[in-house]
Amino acid sequence: MNESIKRLQTNARMSQVVIANGVVYLSGQVPDTAGAPIDVQTKEILTRIDTLLASAGVDRTRLLTANVWLSDPKHFDAFNTVWDAWVANGHAPTRACVTALLMKPGLDVEVAVTALA
Amino acid sequence: MNESIKRLQTNARMSQVVIANGVVYLSGQVPDTAGAPIDVQTKEILTRIDTLLASAGVDRTRLLTANVWLSDPKHFDAFNTVWDAWVANGHAPTRACVTALLMKPGLDVEVAVTALA
Amino acid sequence: MNESIKRLQTNARMSQVVIANGVVYLSGQVPDTAGAPIDVQTKEILTRIDTLLASAGVDRTRLLTANVWLSDPKHFDAFNTVWDAWVANGHAPTRACVTALLMKPGLDVEVAVTALA
Repeated sequence: MNESIKRLQTNARMSQVVIANGVVYLSGQVPDTAGAPIDVQTKEILTRIDTLLASAGVDRTRLLTANVWLSDPKHFDAFNTVWDAWVANGHAPTRACVTALLMKPGLDVEVAVTALA
Repeated sequence: MNESIKRLQTNARMSQVVIANGVVYLSGQVPDTAGAPIDVQTKEILTRIDTLLASAGVDRTRLLTANVWLSDPKHFDAFNTVWDAWVANGHAPTRACVTALLMKPGLDVEVAVTALA
Repeated sequence: MNESIKRLQTNARMSQVVIANGVVYLSGQVPDTAGAPIDVQTKEILTRIDTLLASAGVDRTRLLTANVWLSDPKHFDAFNTVWDAWVANGHAPTRACVTALLMKPGLDVEVAVTALA
């Protein structure tokens, strides 16, 4: 019970980043660009993930896992095109990708990652 | 291969709690109050999560991550009202929240959390 | 930033296995037998998970967590029959199981697990 937990961008609901026990956890990221094409939404959240990882002192070469939710399987190929270009060569995380309706209309993609601290 | 894994409330299908490598993992909790209003279902599972965390020797101030599944986005606000009041001030976990049909009719919310051991 | 991450079966998109910080992470496994009965699909991916765990030097007695996605709640009982028989007696992981449309037609089950390294 003595180990520390570091939390970043914490409010009453969630922390955008939690660092503990050697792992960096990020909250599921959804775009501000709801309703935009899937590639625009995807680029926005991957850029935000880069920023959040940097705030924890790591980068995308340290990714361990990724959970991806798409609003419709029809977005799979376009999402993957952006995703594949973003992943650091030789440092791909594990991934699970399923369909899920997200919490606001026009949100077509959510991504949650973990990284090694 | 020598580190120990502690499992609580284990049956042939799942353990409600697994503790290993410094982390407490909880199974996804669904309410017994299927069909009740979302706030009732939410309060029930958050109380059960408190009990499970206590059985592992921790509490909600140690939360690392939360995955939330709601049966319909219309439940988002009412879920958040209960959730926000439950989260320990300054100790919010990361969170991902998406829509998913759950395994039995009338189940409107499932929550799975991890905590620092 | 000095700890190592081991990745297996890595391509531009994902790694099938990532080992770091004492934990083995597996990507979400989906069957090649899309369209087959749910028990066939489930047996296929659980066998593949066994193989992937072995490639990381562990086995199903070391499971920590499992995330299960079924395309329809109607598959729940048949999935569980295969799952329960597969889980090592006394070594059940935590589990969360929800409904999600998967990325290709005929895919009815996806499972992602973690294990203690």
